[in-house]
Amino acid sequence: MDTTPPSNHPPAAPKAPARRYHQIDGKFQMLRGQLDSPTLAYEQWGELNADRSNAVLIFTGLSPSAHAASSPQDPTTGWWEDMLGPDKPIDTTRYFVVCVNSLGSCFGSTGPASNNPTTDTAYRLTFPMLSVEDIANTGALLLDHLNIDRLHSVVGASMGGMTALAFAMLHPQRADGLISISSAARSMPFSIALRSLQRELVRSDDIWQKGEYDHSTPPDSGMRLARKLGMITYRSSAEWSERFGRERATSEIDPGHPFGIDFEVESYLDAQAMKFTGAFDANCYLYLSRAMDLFDAADHGGSVAKGLSMVKAKRALVIGVVSDFLFPVCQQQELAEGLEAHDIDVTYAELGSIQGHDSFLVDMDRFRPVVAEYFL
Amino acid sequence: MDTTPPSNHPPAAPKAPARRYHQIDGKFQMLRGQLDSPTLAYEQWGELNADRSNAVLIFTGLSPSAHAASSPQDPTTGWWEDMLGPDKPIDTTRYFVVCVNSLGSCFGSTGPASNNPTTDTAYRLTFPMLSVEDIANTGALLLDHLNIDRLHSVVGASMGGMTALAFAMLHPQRADGLISISSAARSMPFSIALRSLQRELVRSDDIWQKGEYDHSTPPDSGMRLARKLGMITYRSSAEWSERFGRERATSEIDPGHPFGIDFEVESYLDAQAMKFTGAFDANCYLYLSRAMDLFDAADHGGSVAKGLSMVKAKRALVIGVVSDFLFPVCQQQELAEGLEAHDIDVTYAELGSIQGHDSFLVDMDRFRPVVAEYFL
Repeated sequence: MDTTPPSNHPPAAPKAPARRYHQIDGKFQMLRGQLDSPTLAYEQWGELNADRSNAVLIFTGLSPSAHAASSPQDPTTGWWEDMLGPDKPIDTTRYFVVCVNSLGSCFGSTGPASNNPTTDTAYRLTFPMLSVEDIANTGALLLDHLNIDRLHSVVGASMGGMTALAFAMLHPQRADGLISISSAARSMPFSIALRSLQRELVRSDDIWQKGEYDHSTPPDSGMRLARKLGMITYRSSAEWSERFGRERATSEIDPGHPFGIDFEVESYLDAQAMKFTGAFDANCYLYLSRAMDLFDAADHGGSVAKGLSMVKAKRALVIGVVSDFLFPVCQQQELAEGLEAHDIDVTYAELGSIQGHDSFLVDMDRFRPVVAEYFL
Repeated sequence: MDTTPPSNHPPAAPKAPARRYHQIDGKFQMLRGQLDSPTLAYEQWGELNADRSNAVLIFTGLSPSAHAASSPQDPTTGWWEDMLGPDKPIDTTRYFVVCVNSLGSCFGSTGPASNNPTTDTAYRLTFPMLSVEDIANTGALLLDHLNIDRLHSVVGASMGGMTALAFAMLHPQRADGLISISSAARSMPFSIALRSLQRELVRSDDIWQKGEYDHSTPPDSGMRLARKLGMITYRSSAEWSERFGRERATSEIDPGHPFGIDFEVESYLDAQAMKFTGAFDANCYLYLSRAMDLFDAADHGGSVAKGLSMVKAKRALVIGVVSDFLFPVCQQQELAEGLEAHDIDVTYAELGSIQGHDSFLVDMDRFRPVVAEYFL
């Protein structure tokens, strides 16, 4: 098992005993630049069957690692633990499942926090501009390494859904099926504006220093603010009302502390944002966030319809959530209809979860049956 | 005409030749504190009729001054120019209209940027915690000064709607009518979370210095970020899509400038946020923003229904906008139904504007007829 971290491994990575590494041989050509022998970190579950036809590849959202679920090597809970495992909707007794850490991220795959082997210093902002297509292409190279010609399905939610779609467009012969969850064929200006502001919050932190911060003292303040904005927009107004109402964090408003925390919702956001800082490299965050803005299926052929016509999967499952205002259901419908127009057997599921964009991580009672039925 | 700025006038106020001032005599008791002889800035249009029954009082949203419309004294365009004036929906040939700058603001009324007469230094964070009810109570004192016993109507949008409601609750004999636009009987946790983050963006600017910044070099960077977040949330996703699509600000993406401006929507936000900085004092912004969070009609009597039962107006107009996610239509319905339950003749109008919370400032074709019909 190739679990030795490569020499260009980001600093202070957490222990991840199930993590495997594949170093790409030679130059990796990107949409706008190239990298020397980048590394991909991934995890795997289950066994490849004799005709190598039961492989499922999962691309992640912006922030997760490849640790989607626990395994004997790493029993810690994964970010999609309820979806993936023995007898779960993506059943690892039947499927060989691989989850790859996105190129540009900081959980084992090469990104702005990794060492550039040519200069022996971290890439930082010399890392080439990243695209969702680049991440998708690393998935194809990983399949080559694993001797998998064709996937049963390529799966992703949020940015991972964009990546899964890009994979299905750019490698049409390598995916029989596509699952896109709370994602889109391209970003809308509303979500671009929010992500642009999140990036500005990080860049406005004096400690960021145009990306030249000391990796041991990163721009936590900016990252915390960006994370708070993310959390507010990943969920929904209805959920906040249900969870917090107008509960005050303290029984008395303190007139002597005029901008402290009054409400439970403020206290919750503060605590959650604190957890995030330190876990994610700021430059990696900036690169991945911008890659989402730039993704546009219409870049391939001149229109979304033409881009989607490149997909040759036999079937697709498109899941949207009514309370998601970052990737609203109109975008899910556009994607489902665009795929259906090209003779793909599309199942479109619009779920009534109130947890907004994050529903696929938390409203498992609604998501499990839909995904399970696809894999029946 | 009492247009001489008082001695405790905030620094560097713009010229406002139509602005009038009323200094409250003695102590002004607030919900949580008190002020010595605060000043109120206001403007007025039209003539009071013989039986003093045609007065309309307008409370503003968080950021506007009292300059709601032009006048012979000040021909510059006001913030509600299309709504207010001769032969406009609020017809100044028929009504005597007063617009008051909110207590706590920085356009002539006493706020955190004003001098405390006791110490002869700016209040800054020694200003008492501000409530929407305090602003409403200043309106009643202004009516005393103008010898107006009872208003034809009290009017407000956004925070101004909260203030108009508070006025109608706390001074039930002084308003025959109430117009509430894109407002609420209390803030929801979603909008509290967004405003709390906006305040944190200001406070995170090193220049803010716990409110002790030099008034000539204010925390522009934090204010600009807060304003951007405001602009994103004041409008709607559909409007951004219609206005900007995925238009790029530059024809080519510049790989050498990895976090510059790619999209028109980013360029627009940047330009608009620049305009705002300098115009509004940061501490005033913090106080007013928090007052919105704290407002809750249920504080008066134990429930929203009991609070609303204090209103004794004969009729009310409640306007909501379907694309407003800060003050969603469910809150407008709650308000309309709560007023109707207490024998008030309520007109509820739900408008299909796509400009979100800001619609009352821009979608005049939809708003004018509804307001005009109320004043017929």
